Amino acid sequence: MTASFTQLVQARLDSLTKPPGSLGRLEALALRLAEQQQTLDVVTRPRRLVLFAADHGVVAAGVSQWPSAVTAQMVLNIAQGGAASSVLARQFGVELRVVDVGVARDTPWPDRSIVDRRIRPGTRNFALEPALTVEEFEAAWQVGVEQAATAHAEGCRMLLGGEMGIGNTTAASALTAWLTQQPAESVVGSGAGATDESLHRKCEVVTQAVARARAFPDIRQGLASICGLEIAALAGFYAQGARQQTPVLLDGFIATSAALLAERLAPGTARGLLAAHRSAEPGHTPALAMLGLVPWIDHWQLRLGEGTGALLLVPLVDAAGAILTQMATFQSAGVAAHAD
Amino acid sequence: MTASFTQLVQARLDSLTKPPGSLGRLEALALRLAEQQQTLDVVTRPRRLVLFAADHGVVAAGVSQWPSAVTAQMVLNIAQGGAASSVLARQFGVELRVVDVGVARDTPWPDRSIVDRRIRPGTRNFALEPALTVEEFEAAWQVGVEQAATAHAEGCRMLLGGEMGIGNTTAASALTAWLTQQPAESVVGSGAGATDESLHRKCEVVTQAVARARAFPDIRQGLASICGLEIAALAGFYAQGARQQTPVLLDGFIATSAALLAERLAPGTARGLLAAHRSAEPGHTPALAMLGLVPWIDHWQLRLGEGTGALLLVPLVDAAGAILTQMATFQSAGVAAHAD
Repeated sequence: MTASFTQLVQARLDSLTKPPGSLGRLEALALRLAEQQQTLDVVTRPRRLVLFAADHGVVAAGVSQWPSAVTAQMVLNIAQGGAASSVLARQFGVELRVVDVGVARDTPWPDRSIVDRRIRPGTRNFALEPALTVEEFEAAWQVGVEQAATAHAEGCRMLLGGEMGIGNTTAASALTAWLTQQPAESVVGSGAGATDESLHRKCEVVTQAVARARAFPDIRQGLASICGLEIAALAGFYAQGARQQTPVLLDGFIATSAALLAERLAPGTARGLLAAHRSAEPGHTPALAMLGLVPWIDHWQLRLGEGTGALLLVPLVDAAGAILTQMATFQSAGVAAHAD
Repeated sequence: MTASFTQLVQARLDSLTKPPGSLGRLEALALRLAEQQQTLDVVTRPRRLVLFAADHGVVAAGVSQWPSAVTAQMVLNIAQGGAASSVLARQFGVELRVVDVGVARDTPWPDRSIVDRRIRPGTRNFALEPALTVEEFEAAWQVGVEQAATAHAEGCRMLLGGEMGIGNTTAASALTAWLTQQPAESVVGSGAGATDESLHRKCEVVTQAVARARAFPDIRQGLASICGLEIAALAGFYAQGARQQTPVLLDGFIATSAALLAERLAPGTARGLLAAHRSAEPGHTPALAMLGLVPWIDHWQLRLGEGTGALLLVPLVDAAGAILTQMATFQSAGVAAHAD
């Protein structure tokens, strides 16, 4: 984007019937959206949440309070409209697409709306061995790229990414610890709920897995060794979203670990993202800082994932777009723009 | 509200398919809404923003960078759909009603949608004399009461209050300084834009007016002497909203000075309010604290008024209501609720 285009958007905002800057961060959001879409005529519809689901072998190491079976149960619940993300997507007019990139399940989905792009039935337990091979990692990344490209081709003007996968805060913690250079203790949180014992176990697993990951000569091999299939897919999704200049709303801690991954392998991705919120998970703050992103919604203490945080930003992005495109100017409304 | 009803709402929230508490403040908002409506079947539509407009004689004392004529120009702009509040109200499905309680204008409005309840053409200049008599103050308050009662009778399940009046941050500062026991310097901000000179003048005017107001033997006389007609109307609107148990979304600094007034004259009003945001105006923070309200949207640095801050909270209240009423429970969705 050129400096002059930013100035053009700012001039437009200042011509609208309000004291300059008086809508604060809403004006900043309008400016950012216009920069991303490179137009004053910003459009936020249609929009789609693509929610990638997969299982994690590391659950066998005792890092989660929820059994892996819950991933498939929640995938069905999301597709059938009962989950938080389903409710919020309906509420805000966001199309929801669930993509299975690796749920531990060997039968077809009873709900035909679930997109089956299963690469393998969950990752390997990275407490014992690398979670994914580079080939598996790249296949998952490619699913994400295709989903973003398809959404673009089908006319979507704004995208959201989400994830579902029991155990995935452990993979996200490992990726975040490595990519932000933080010790496991600084990034590991309780996720969907953890006891002191499982938290301790999670830190131990993360520390060891990161040490092994760093030792691989090829960074992709290292990243694949601690990744999740849904995280790799989200990373590809973000990278492609940024490449095609569709604004992408970033969700919480796990989604942001995917963004770190995308920024590392496809530099420039972060510029295409809008950070929806700051999660209650401690690792989210250093991850956002590393990406240079300031979350729009702060202090809401969300820690659910599934794209719910990104969904909550949607009406505020709509509002920012409406301000920029629908407000009267001082001139058009016949309002005195200056002091007497 | 009884403790057991709160527990019932909490149990409902915890039965939904998400880790308990994982939607953070969104769950707190759902709980608050249910408490205010005293039902699990919370409803947020239809909803109405009543925007009270009036002029301020104190503008003659040089406290504002905008001429009083802008009030009428903006009232027309709001009614005709070009202002920030008009755009956001359309965006979020909020009916917008503009009520003139004292715009300095002696001809009828060309736009028939503007409700003419003009009590007098603006307040007197309170740098020189009391702004309003007690009778004028009470007449304005009564307009607000009627608007809330009418909205309720017409089926509104959620209300928003807004204001428009050039110079009204000066009246709001005086009310806030008095009712929160703060010196003028701690509550006076730049409002819609002020030079150092006008800021200094504003502080001087506020300090003197508050000293005079305190000296009245009758508190209503004192409050009327520094009030605005739209602020008195908003106070009556909030008091009635709370009395009839319709949740009312509070806007920024000026609206909150009206809430302080309402809480003083009709104790218990604050419990019926949802504080939408924390304004960039310095006086907003002590005013919210005095009312025991924590704003839902923080750090957005809004300072426009017109109900815009309250409007931005609307989709988040909708989201909270949708979570409570539409999500599946662990039991209904067949999701394992407990760890293995």
